[in-house]
Amino acid sequence: MHRKIKMGMIGGGRGAFIGNVHRMAAALDGQIELVCGAFSSDPEKSNLSGRDLYINPERVYASYDEMIHSEKALPEDLRMDFVSIVTPNHLHYGPAKLALGCGFHVVCDKPLSFNLEEAYALKKLVDETGLLFALTHNYTGYPMVKQARQMIKHGRLGKIRKVVVAYPQGWLSTKLENTDQKQASWRTDPDKSGIAGAIGDIGTHAENLAEYITGLKINQICADISTIVEGRRLDDDGNILLRFDNGAHGILYASQISAGEENNLSINVYGEKGGLEWHQMEPNSLELKWLDKSKEIYRTGVGDLYPEAQIHTRIPAGHPEGFLEAFANIYRNFAKCIQARNDGYQVDDIYLDFPTVDDGVRGMEFIYKVIESGNSDKKWISI
Amino acid sequence: MHRKIKMGMIGGGRGAFIGNVHRMAAALDGQIELVCGAFSSDPEKSNLSGRDLYINPERVYASYDEMIHSEKALPEDLRMDFVSIVTPNHLHYGPAKLALGCGFHVVCDKPLSFNLEEAYALKKLVDETGLLFALTHNYTGYPMVKQARQMIKHGRLGKIRKVVVAYPQGWLSTKLENTDQKQASWRTDPDKSGIAGAIGDIGTHAENLAEYITGLKINQICADISTIVEGRRLDDDGNILLRFDNGAHGILYASQISAGEENNLSINVYGEKGGLEWHQMEPNSLELKWLDKSKEIYRTGVGDLYPEAQIHTRIPAGHPEGFLEAFANIYRNFAKCIQARNDGYQVDDIYLDFPTVDDGVRGMEFIYKVIESGNSDKKWISI
Amino acid sequence: MHRKIKMGMIGGGRGAFIGNVHRMAAALDGQIELVCGAFSSDPEKSNLSGRDLYINPERVYASYDEMIHSEKALPEDLRMDFVSIVTPNHLHYGPAKLALGCGFHVVCDKPLSFNLEEAYALKKLVDETGLLFALTHNYTGYPMVKQARQMIKHGRLGKIRKVVVAYPQGWLSTKLENTDQKQASWRTDPDKSGIAGAIGDIGTHAENLAEYITGLKINQICADISTIVEGRRLDDDGNILLRFDNGAHGILYASQISAGEENNLSINVYGEKGGLEWHQMEPNSLELKWLDKSKEIYRTGVGDLYPEAQIHTRIPAGHPEGFLEAFANIYRNFAKCIQARNDGYQVDDIYLDFPTVDDGVRGMEFIYKVIESGNSDKKWISI
Amino acid sequence: MHRKIKMGMIGGGRGAFIGNVHRMAAALDGQIELVCGAFSSDPEKSNLSGRDLYINPERVYASYDEMIHSEKALPEDLRMDFVSIVTPNHLHYGPAKLALGCGFHVVCDKPLSFNLEEAYALKKLVDETGLLFALTHNYTGYPMVKQARQMIKHGRLGKIRKVVVAYPQGWLSTKLENTDQKQASWRTDPDKSGIAGAIGDIGTHAENLAEYITGLKINQICADISTIVEGRRLDDDGNILLRFDNGAHGILYASQISAGEENNLSINVYGEKGGLEWHQMEPNSLELKWLDKSKEIYRTGVGDLYPEAQIHTRIPAGHPEGFLEAFANIYRNFAKCIQARNDGYQVDDIYLDFPTVDDGVRGMEFIYKVIESGNSDKKWISI
Repeated sequence: MHRKIKMGMIGGGRGAFIGNVHRMAAALDGQIELVCGAFSSDPEKSNLSGRDLYINPERVYASYDEMIHSEKALPEDLRMDFVSIVTPNHLHYGPAKLALGCGFHVVCDKPLSFNLEEAYALKKLVDETGLLFALTHNYTGYPMVKQARQMIKHGRLGKIRKVVVAYPQGWLSTKLENTDQKQASWRTDPDKSGIAGAIGDIGTHAENLAEYITGLKINQICADISTIVEGRRLDDDGNILLRFDNGAHGILYASQISAGEENNLSINVYGEKGGLEWHQMEPNSLELKWLDKSKEIYRTGVGDLYPEAQIHTRIPAGHPEGFLEAFANIYRNFAKCIQARNDGYQVDDIYLDFPTVDDGVRGMEFIYKVIESGNSDKKWISI
Repeated sequence: MHRKIKMGMIGGGRGAFIGNVHRMAAALDGQIELVCGAFSSDPEKSNLSGRDLYINPERVYASYDEMIHSEKALPEDLRMDFVSIVTPNHLHYGPAKLALGCGFHVVCDKPLSFNLEEAYALKKLVDETGLLFALTHNYTGYPMVKQARQMIKHGRLGKIRKVVVAYPQGWLSTKLENTDQKQASWRTDPDKSGIAGAIGDIGTHAENLAEYITGLKINQICADISTIVEGRRLDDDGNILLRFDNGAHGILYASQISAGEENNLSINVYGEKGGLEWHQMEPNSLELKWLDKSKEIYRTGVGDLYPEAQIHTRIPAGHPEGFLEAFANIYRNFAKCIQARNDGYQVDDIYLDFPTVDDGVRGMEFIYKVIESGNSDKKWISI
Repeated sequence: MHRKIKMGMIGGGRGAFIGNVHRMAAALDGQIELVCGAFSSDPEKSNLSGRDLYINPERVYASYDEMIHSEKALPEDLRMDFVSIVTPNHLHYGPAKLALGCGFHVVCDKPLSFNLEEAYALKKLVDETGLLFALTHNYTGYPMVKQARQMIKHGRLGKIRKVVVAYPQGWLSTKLENTDQKQASWRTDPDKSGIAGAIGDIGTHAENLAEYITGLKINQICADISTIVEGRRLDDDGNILLRFDNGAHGILYASQISAGEENNLSINVYGEKGGLEWHQMEPNSLELKWLDKSKEIYRTGVGDLYPEAQIHTRIPAGHPEGFLEAFANIYRNFAKCIQARNDGYQVDDIYLDFPTVDDGVRGMEFIYKVIESGNSDKKWISI
Repeated sequence: MHRKIKMGMIGGGRGAFIGNVHRMAAALDGQIELVCGAFSSDPEKSNLSGRDLYINPERVYASYDEMIHSEKALPEDLRMDFVSIVTPNHLHYGPAKLALGCGFHVVCDKPLSFNLEEAYALKKLVDETGLLFALTHNYTGYPMVKQARQMIKHGRLGKIRKVVVAYPQGWLSTKLENTDQKQASWRTDPDKSGIAGAIGDIGTHAENLAEYITGLKINQICADISTIVEGRRLDDDGNILLRFDNGAHGILYASQISAGEENNLSINVYGEKGGLEWHQMEPNSLELKWLDKSKEIYRTGVGDLYPEAQIHTRIPAGHPEGFLEAFANIYRNFAKCIQARNDGYQVDDIYLDFPTVDDGVRGMEFIYKVIESGNSDKKWISI
């Protein structure tokens, strides 16, 4: 069954941001084709979006329900292999549950779900069905993040002592949700976003990045969570003290009112032997700092990197790969795993490297504990 | 005729570098589909490559000749719209000529051709056929390069006085062509590359970038051209003094023996009122320097950029777009122009912004004059 | 009485680090001469140090007590104008008290004293005597820090919402105090340093910088204070949540076990209209980030800076001034103020800009509250 | 004779720039005292300047002639040890010749002299008298420049193949000499500056830096020398191709019309094994680039640097030292050498590291050859 993997998309109609990101990421490596979609809850808009994307009109659906059932009814070699869910948070659970129930693999945008109960339910379903489930914590898709993780795993920094992960953005410095900016609107609406704003939207990326790179788990937090812009309905700034399961200390902050910041996710990790620093906005450099010797700049594609870094790089050093390429690494790996399933062989372990429903549950637990801590007078909350 | 634009590829089989770049660039925006290819002069290898790419085996051809004629024989709505030529330099002219002759638009890798005569011949053919021809001087595809060009065009730097464009790489610091490194091998072989090595491969990018950004033409050069690595058959380092048609002075250097450099194309332009600086390896920043005030960092997606910069940006500020996205801008614009032709409407001028056969002829003239200057005791050579 | 201002130094003998910094800073602008010293509690070492420094042997003293009394006995035009105290923390109070009591102005290294009681006593003495007292929180001496303060004062960032101040160092990543490294030894010794290690040594710099730049006061803290290196007797890492008196939130961290970090003090401040970023290790740049427009890099000596920035700059833009020059700004201003007193005129307000005993008391209160918070289960501690 | 070394200054009165730089540099390390001066050709201004500097009025002189003769008449232990000449170029030779003739050591600002004849004459005098002569090519005073030189000397980059040294400034982008800006005025006046403008003022720094770091000599040049600002009397921009005595190729450019540039001297050197990059505006970092491994950032004070780098560093890593500290390294070394002479011992070789009259002659020859090349149609001129 030598063919491209077939994707159906839920959400991502005209005017959406992340839907297009998913489509570009899925298309980049030529292994996935978009064959169908329920792009909007408005059937007319779904149709127009389908046309924009050159989808066969018969496979542009009015609802995810229709899509999943109709596709299931198609012959196996025609129907979609997986769904990609790119709707706001409150619309993750429904389609994910149905898709899994109907035997389709799932890619889902983060955070996993609207609330923690949904997260646990999805985890259960994934475990029961044995289907593949990828969560797009895309920032761990960068080659230099892979390199960082491997260096720590191989002990090159020694025991980790301190982690500082920062995710400042400035785009919600004003009350953008009062304009017709769709992204701002749902992200600040507790009926669509869930109990958290910035913490859910970007704080979970920071948490995921820190735990992915260090291989550690945050086990205590102390959070100062604020809504800075008057009248906003969810948090837009959070400063959090961390303690990790190996005894390391840390800081995580996530903010959408850090005026003038673009998308400035960064991490510093310090161990007994050295430290590392990585910035998402210059993702092809990884700075290594050592006790008593010159610092080193590891670069995508340069020198003796770990295979995990190399396999996620497409072009030679100095030809910058960016956000979409890192995002595409999730899709590429996911497609490789589906192919292996479809064709009945064992996929190389290196391609199992994408965030799963477990990362999603972890993220939801993080959100809940951070919001609890923000509302509490207790200093430390366990997670 | 609402459908994706259909691409056929010549070259780019297993092991090639630039072919895959072209494919990813063409795929990124979902407007182009790869429908056929003659991926290698070795039919077996072409077949395997076609299979890797999930191409219908009937449309994987043993030669470009076969491909172009076979595709021409297909019904209009099935056959390819254009060919993408990603072979070494000596294999540009043949397929380009045939494709144009058979009514296909052409995308061609740079430099345009093996020699100047071929360049002139192609220019003539493009003019005669009226077909679309894009040359992948991809570095002008970056949004911040577009911004730089517009700023100068709108006089924001005043009259341009000085230009420094640098393109150091280090990958040919050793005699890599003695190994089985395919890229090194043909690029240093005068039978495949033409009269120039580094000057043709990357010097033309630098020339193209400088003229594109400034809107000026280099009209005098004085070159010191060297083959640094012993036994190499073509130049691997060139330092060139420039004079421009408005009286500005400049420097261009291109080197493949600058040990430790990745792909470090950069440009500085100085005018009466200010200067600008751009680095390909950090392409989303454009530094503006002013007389007597603070410098500014323009960033992809931030603030009041020219439409020409905005239209070539896909995702919000701080989500880095890189080499492939810039490359894809050529394909996206090219596809828009073909669509307009196919559907008989006038394309928006802003999409006419891709390098053409004229840039290709210009590049070939530059190569010839630089090599002539390098061999000459005369100080200045006109171009 | 047109003459240089005369300095006597307490501490700073052979092998000391900060004593030499003070001497270079005092010498730089040619307004201060070192005329006497009690450089060590070891009279022989004091003598050798005095000789190294070309001090008249009659004015090299065996103790600060001897120095202060002997100098007081000299004719007014010969005796020192002020003492500079560069001893470890536990030896600040004695000489400062005696000097003030004998009518000498004082420059004192930070933190102000060994404990809070001494700090209050010194504050009282300074107030009673009306003498000048400078505390060398040198990092506020940089021109770009002055610029940052003025920009915020003039409302250019709008109301301040968030502050992140970080001070990671790595030099105490190993148990350096077990070697004969003098700096490590006293700084980790509670009998010499006081109740705090990293928090006292560098945390107070961070606190001072944040309050100086923003003009705000920290009024609540929540601290996680650790001793990471086993067997160390004082804290070497601290992560602190902050709340400011205007409602702004923040983070301060200070660490001496951040492996591979040199002296990486930095600050980010975010207001309603924009943000600023400054790094001590590249002190001549101040990054300004704006809502919806390009960011600006203010540079020492470039463009229309506030007079407070200009007056603390010695040489033209692009000629980097560093740590010693910023340090020297304290001494220069202090000397200007003494001159004005000596000669009976009113000094220009702009020279009153140096940290005083009040900053010292503030720093000591900060230390005490941070250590209290570190030991407490209560989330927020008022300060 | 344990005492500070005594300096007399020629030039550097009120309003001068470089005179104050020399004074700060001389004062920094506490080994030199300014004892006398002829600060201006205007006796009144010289007196006022002397008073500003707290010089004994009896040793503030109306002319350099008076100063040198008067000081010579003083007892040996009172009179100055050396003169520091900080006048415009046309006023170097006279005082230098007289000082040497009267037995005084000399520090002289660059370029060495008004014309080449004077340079040769000074060289002869220095050789004949055996006196010490330092030329303030201050940029080679930086620790990381010392490190670069030693790395190349010890073969760590292999044979050098290419050098790019750039010195863009923007401060003469307008006709500043038409205002009362003293620095611009004499530097663009052929009666004071000599035959060259930018080439003499900063081009010689670039030449000196390139030859100092590489240990090579430029032996052929091809120059494009321009006067960009209309009506200016000397060159303000130069682009030069270089060939070195070991066969390496290179580029040197010096410009004072590169709008928005501060003082952006930088150098890249490429050898067989690796490359290095250094920027004067961030002088404490030295970038090392390698074939096939991660790049390294050497930092002032970090790790295992050569003694030549360490001895020119005053404070720990991360406490930035800048322009004045590098400048002071020349004075410190010069003072050490005078001390050794005065006291009759052999100075440690490491302190012999300052630019001498030979560097001055070299610089003047460079100026003459560059201007000759700029006026010539001949491609290569030997030097």
